[in-house]
Amino acid sequence: MTFRYQIRTRYAETGQDGIIHHSSYVVYLEAARIEFMQKELEFDLNVLEKSKIYCPVVDLSIKYLKPLYSLEDIDVEVALDAFSKVRFSMQYKIFRKGVQVTEATTSHCFSNEAFKPIAIPKDLTKRFQEIKSTE
Amino acid sequence: MTFRYQIRTRYAETGQDGIIHHSSYVVYLEAARIEFMQKELEFDLNVLEKSKIYCPVVDLSIKYLKPLYSLEDIDVEVALDAFSKVRFSMQYKIFRKGVQVTEATTSHCFSNEAFKPIAIPKDLTKRFQEIKSTE
Amino acid sequence: MTFRYQIRTRYAETGQDGIIHHSSYVVYLEAARIEFMQKELEFDLNVLEKSKIYCPVVDLSIKYLKPLYSLEDIDVEVALDAFSKVRFSMQYKIFRKGVQVTEATTSHCFSNEAFKPIAIPKDLTKRFQEIKSTE
Amino acid sequence: MTFRYQIRTRYAETGQDGIIHHSSYVVYLEAARIEFMQKELEFDLNVLEKSKIYCPVVDLSIKYLKPLYSLEDIDVEVALDAFSKVRFSMQYKIFRKGVQVTEATTSHCFSNEAFKPIAIPKDLTKRFQEIKSTE
Repeated sequence: MTFRYQIRTRYAETGQDGIIHHSSYVVYLEAARIEFMQKELEFDLNVLEKSKIYCPVVDLSIKYLKPLYSLEDIDVEVALDAFSKVRFSMQYKIFRKGVQVTEATTSHCFSNEAFKPIAIPKDLTKRFQEIKSTE
Repeated sequence: MTFRYQIRTRYAETGQDGIIHHSSYVVYLEAARIEFMQKELEFDLNVLEKSKIYCPVVDLSIKYLKPLYSLEDIDVEVALDAFSKVRFSMQYKIFRKGVQVTEATTSHCFSNEAFKPIAIPKDLTKRFQEIKSTE
Repeated sequence: MTFRYQIRTRYAETGQDGIIHHSSYVVYLEAARIEFMQKELEFDLNVLEKSKIYCPVVDLSIKYLKPLYSLEDIDVEVALDAFSKVRFSMQYKIFRKGVQVTEATTSHCFSNEAFKPIAIPKDLTKRFQEIKSTE
Repeated sequence: MTFRYQIRTRYAETGQDGIIHHSSYVVYLEAARIEFMQKELEFDLNVLEKSKIYCPVVDLSIKYLKPLYSLEDIDVEVALDAFSKVRFSMQYKIFRKGVQVTEATTSHCFSNEAFKPIAIPKDLTKRFQEIKSTE
């Protein structure tokens, strides 16, 4: 299953070299991932965090293939890559008018308030299994 | 009492027009204000927030007198403007090499976790009174 | 004429107090203003800046009436406030589910590459006059 | 040669989970890299960009080993990893009180205004060679 989230790049996200700053992509990936998890995995980060469980980023990797400019409509494609009992990873592709401009992956764990790792919530594991079984 | 906090502007804070984006100034003011409150008012925001008391910004006003560029060393001057039982305001001036480039004010209240206003903590009111009595 | 621009608040825009950081509002205002100018005033900032003319923010004022939280859909209402030969101002209201949460104004000038003020482009002045004549 | 750059984490860089948002690390790495290149490689990004030559990030990889909190003093260690005629890479370690909290790498190329790759400036290649020869 691949989920697509549309974002309009912002003027404030540019840098003095005239292109979208590379740190803004990290925010785009997160926005797409959270929508994907909410819409397709029935997983609400705000609800989770109210119960003092967190879902931090463990690692992050981005390839910047082509520059992005301000006020462009882009599509961020998100898909579940892999998951274990304590960790999962997501894959991303960013497109502008059908042309891929970025490739990325992120890994995540779940943690308590002290940021000690805990198991992935069972409901989410079940949804992960469903997704992988239909691929 | 006027407090000065030095900041080096960052490349990431510029926009495509080549100057520091006007939203970054808000972050500079906050950084200077928090240092001022910690160093001069013995007020630690992190400690306060652990007890579920918050200090939100109620209003904000900035005059951009001259542009700032990346990798400049600037001084943010902060001073207590006024305070009541439930609110206080700060005044700011930003300088580059002794020349003022920005003028700003912010107002703040204290609130509980539901962001309902509460009285200013007594220790802080005492420090405000001391500052005003020595002016 | 009032223009409405919808934004979904982002997780990355929150702070440790659990609400949208007050600096993010500045970005919301800008995003709405740029769309307003592009869609209603036929004014394209990217095109303008390619000809080395800029439209910096001269002053900014925000009243934070109610907190915003992550993943909320908000409407930013923008309207032309006033204009002269060298400066114009915009008024903003941010709404969440019909309830106003923010009030703001910004002023702008036009400048050359050295950030020296220049007159407002004639086409834009004409559009400003049209807007004001129909109010 | 390893270069260390000290940064104080900012309140505005936190998220609602109470830790520094993972996108802020990208800004820390850049700030450290630019200082390293300016102080140790006699390479001034602002000067370069005035001549319409840019140094975009080609890829980026970060491992978040331990969370960072607001108002912490951290050290970002930067070192040249490798370089060719058209690309170079940097390695980073972030420390808090001597304990490593982050590991990262970035790759960069040089480009003209259209973001087409060009050769690394000769002066910089020479400095890269000097650094590598003394390791």
